[in-house]
Amino acid sequence: MNPQIITFLIKCPDQKGIITKLTRFFYEEGFNIISSQQYTNSEEEKFFMRVRLSSDDSVIISKIELEGKFKKLAELYHITWKVDYGSKKHKVAIMVSHTSHNLYDLLHRHKEGKLNCEVSMVVSNHLKLKPIAEMFKIPFHYAPITKETKTQQEQSLISLYDQHEIDLIIMARYMQILSEDFINHFSERIINIHHSFLPAFQGANPYKRAHERGVKLIGATAHYATQDLDEGPIIEQGVERVSHESTVSSLKSIGAEIETFVLAKAVNFHLNDQIIVDGNKAIVFPETGE
Amino acid sequence: MNPQIITFLIKCPDQKGIITKLTRFFYEEGFNIISSQQYTNSEEEKFFMRVRLSSDDSVIISKIELEGKFKKLAELYHITWKVDYGSKKHKVAIMVSHTSHNLYDLLHRHKEGKLNCEVSMVVSNHLKLKPIAEMFKIPFHYAPITKETKTQQEQSLISLYDQHEIDLIIMARYMQILSEDFINHFSERIINIHHSFLPAFQGANPYKRAHERGVKLIGATAHYATQDLDEGPIIEQGVERVSHESTVSSLKSIGAEIETFVLAKAVNFHLNDQIIVDGNKAIVFPETGE
Amino acid sequence: MNPQIITFLIKCPDQKGIITKLTRFFYEEGFNIISSQQYTNSEEEKFFMRVRLSSDDSVIISKIELEGKFKKLAELYHITWKVDYGSKKHKVAIMVSHTSHNLYDLLHRHKEGKLNCEVSMVVSNHLKLKPIAEMFKIPFHYAPITKETKTQQEQSLISLYDQHEIDLIIMARYMQILSEDFINHFSERIINIHHSFLPAFQGANPYKRAHERGVKLIGATAHYATQDLDEGPIIEQGVERVSHESTVSSLKSIGAEIETFVLAKAVNFHLNDQIIVDGNKAIVFPETGE
Amino acid sequence: MNPQIITFLIKCPDQKGIITKLTRFFYEEGFNIISSQQYTNSEEEKFFMRVRLSSDDSVIISKIELEGKFKKLAELYHITWKVDYGSKKHKVAIMVSHTSHNLYDLLHRHKEGKLNCEVSMVVSNHLKLKPIAEMFKIPFHYAPITKETKTQQEQSLISLYDQHEIDLIIMARYMQILSEDFINHFSERIINIHHSFLPAFQGANPYKRAHERGVKLIGATAHYATQDLDEGPIIEQGVERVSHESTVSSLKSIGAEIETFVLAKAVNFHLNDQIIVDGNKAIVFPETGE
Repeated sequence: MNPQIITFLIKCPDQKGIITKLTRFFYEEGFNIISSQQYTNSEEEKFFMRVRLSSDDSVIISKIELEGKFKKLAELYHITWKVDYGSKKHKVAIMVSHTSHNLYDLLHRHKEGKLNCEVSMVVSNHLKLKPIAEMFKIPFHYAPITKETKTQQEQSLISLYDQHEIDLIIMARYMQILSEDFINHFSERIINIHHSFLPAFQGANPYKRAHERGVKLIGATAHYATQDLDEGPIIEQGVERVSHESTVSSLKSIGAEIETFVLAKAVNFHLNDQIIVDGNKAIVFPETGE
Repeated sequence: MNPQIITFLIKCPDQKGIITKLTRFFYEEGFNIISSQQYTNSEEEKFFMRVRLSSDDSVIISKIELEGKFKKLAELYHITWKVDYGSKKHKVAIMVSHTSHNLYDLLHRHKEGKLNCEVSMVVSNHLKLKPIAEMFKIPFHYAPITKETKTQQEQSLISLYDQHEIDLIIMARYMQILSEDFINHFSERIINIHHSFLPAFQGANPYKRAHERGVKLIGATAHYATQDLDEGPIIEQGVERVSHESTVSSLKSIGAEIETFVLAKAVNFHLNDQIIVDGNKAIVFPETGE
Repeated sequence: MNPQIITFLIKCPDQKGIITKLTRFFYEEGFNIISSQQYTNSEEEKFFMRVRLSSDDSVIISKIELEGKFKKLAELYHITWKVDYGSKKHKVAIMVSHTSHNLYDLLHRHKEGKLNCEVSMVVSNHLKLKPIAEMFKIPFHYAPITKETKTQQEQSLISLYDQHEIDLIIMARYMQILSEDFINHFSERIINIHHSFLPAFQGANPYKRAHERGVKLIGATAHYATQDLDEGPIIEQGVERVSHESTVSSLKSIGAEIETFVLAKAVNFHLNDQIIVDGNKAIVFPETGE
Repeated sequence: MNPQIITFLIKCPDQKGIITKLTRFFYEEGFNIISSQQYTNSEEEKFFMRVRLSSDDSVIISKIELEGKFKKLAELYHITWKVDYGSKKHKVAIMVSHTSHNLYDLLHRHKEGKLNCEVSMVVSNHLKLKPIAEMFKIPFHYAPITKETKTQQEQSLISLYDQHEIDLIIMARYMQILSEDFINHFSERIINIHHSFLPAFQGANPYKRAHERGVKLIGATAHYATQDLDEGPIIEQGVERVSHESTVSSLKSIGAEIETFVLAKAVNFHLNDQIIVDGNKAIVFPETGE
């Protein structure tokens, strides 16, 4: 096997000796375990693991054999799993409407090599942010939408994304509610940024409502999109202090800062295979210093 | 006038020259303005001011004359106001049920001279925390309550508080809903700590619900009690980071830390006359370094 | 006078009635005070004030007359002062070397209308970041430097800046030590970002040293440049949590995030006339919600 | 073996298969691994592990046998290790001088069951804080010290601590420099709170110096005491925002808040066996939700 870093994300019922059984499997195939992170939910008796392996010439097993063998182990221990060989970059589509700060931030990070992915396209139901995509030389796809054309627009986007083998869709302030069909097609592969500290101010106009309520902190939440609006697994949250001097406009401006770093963090967690979704919760393993 | 620090809290319609008119009034009476803080809500055209004055021998006006003269100014400019001479410490009653961390923290700060008040009594509908009051040598008042005795219990507490000239009631995890009558009697003088980042998880069992929702930050909120439960003016909020490893029990433990410093901060803001309530918002002027 | 917002920054010995005297001056000239912020350093008996005025047709005084009259008042009360009419945008030069995150961030904010200034040029002793300036259509000035050419390079930069009426120089990771002459020429008009939580890790390689020391938080500091390296008045600081897993490389990456928001905040404080420098301290008045 | 939780802290050179070898050892002895945390310092090729085991009736090995067997494994793989059976509470001595906030906070947490230890005694070179120890019914030991009696005082404290089998010494603002002998005797078992964000303001009067420097954030640092003053492995740090309004006195007051939660956190990390010291760094494994 070529030298590479392989990441396994594993979920199974908790059981005695499970760490040994899993690490021994990788050890016996000649892999070096560069990091191993576990989480045991003892209440629900569930076990979660993220293992990072490095391979070198001493690993003679092929990918197909590795997966075949692991599949048998998985059946034995009722394991749900994913593997990422790191050799192929995730392909990402960024969806936006009118608001630019998240798009700018993501494209800038991408250009600087701080997002471990290939941004394949920017998609919007408006033309307003096209110049930003162009500035960063990313293909822009205009996908207008009306009540009447919604199904059709989504279907053509599904085709487009599948054709480009899109792994991750980032809703960087895309102000449309996605249909159940769309979401199911990309299950656990759509990350949305909600401009409030969920579950506070779920729904529309969170900054306006935060201002009316006179809160002393505002926040933002990145989560996987699910059919229940703003109810999907929370990946990351951030807050900042505000005061009575804050107007709706300054809340929006402070909020924009939070939204950018919260969304970027969440996207990186996903791209680095740090997340296992369990029900409506996201288990986010901390970054390891490799 | 004896040397002392006097604080005026002022609220009125915004109008040209209002700062000059107000500061000139105090200047001409011989006071030294040691700090002056203003907030203009330009949207609603309201003006708010906190002025701290020091007096010395050169101030010959009496308190009664000062208030009489200021009353005339207030009528002229439609000012709502409060004055605090700092000479008399606020008298405080702390109400608790079963949870001890806020009580401990407040009594400790009080003993250390870090709460600018006199804690007159600890009141509880249970006997459990009596030993803590005793440890700090604060009178403990047992006020059991049932559905049937609620009105009666509250009436006797109102009498008790009035008799002791209680200025501020701290609900330090007092798990009873206060009646409209009680709250109106002590309007803007009851501070409650809610163990969540309001308006998220309003109501009961916030930590359990935060756990179920899989949030990445939890918080606490100190607010003035109003008739709408958990809807009163927010004075202070705090948050801490949590993770998927957090159990309901560890959330409670982390939350207890947040609750103590958030409540203590809010109480100090009130005791130092830093707050002006306007509708359901609390304007909290920052501490000045005198 | 045309409708406009005028900001006075005022510093003088503390004295009785000073607020009244100052606000009355503006009131009597017909200005509306939209915000007035004061700070009294009672230990050193100094008074600081930031006043924001709005003018309209009722203000008949001209700028020259206003300044002339205020000058007399200033002499009377030993006031040092600055006035900004807001009508002319600050002109800014951004200086960089190899590191791009601060430059990107500032140019992006500028483009989005979130920096209240005109970025006149990007100046660098290297060519590496030229493409970023071009991407944002900002003139790039290449100013290579060696030990031998240092004086000459600085002199030509001084000429260039003066010629373009540069108000503020942002050292956005410009890795050259500026001479006394240069700094004095632009006194209180050069903002530097230091990539550590000053005064910790003053000098070179702060992230490497932070890693060696095993700190649990890292930070960044924006300050005015003075002759004593890394000793100038601190405008803003930020920190983030790190762990034993953090490598020097991940510290740099986390640090880059802190540096961008800390520098942007500091620059905005300066551009919005929120700062009064007193000795080696920066008094930063909070933003008011106008 | 009785049902109990056993914690192993392990440090060794990084080597292929080490996780498997270690977890298999525990698995084969019949233990259930309730959590396993690893950290690989790939730069220095070191491996660190914290394993939490639960035993039940199926574990027939005795403690002596377990340690004997593990010792052989340890020799084979060059492992340095510690084991804690959780059956015996850590015995703690708290050392103080004049400042009370940390003492209060620790004794309160202890009383509330939030410090997993037995506080055996409070030791002070002054009598001032004796009433606090008495209030919490903890033995108070008066150990005055002068230049001349320093060696003698320390020797008698060493005897006292050894006699009471003290596991952990908390310097909760004990303002004496400990000798090399004393520190070596209790290596990695003395936790100190330094009232600054180390390495900033190392040494005396940090708040005064922070005020003079005009910092915008202040902090506190809990670390293991070593011979190099304020240079020991950092366990935990915290910061809070301050402003130009902050006086030395208010910095002290804000700092006291930071010191209490930082010290309490660090002590809990130690008591829960979350820390492995490596050179002058502390590896602190996050709490697991068991």
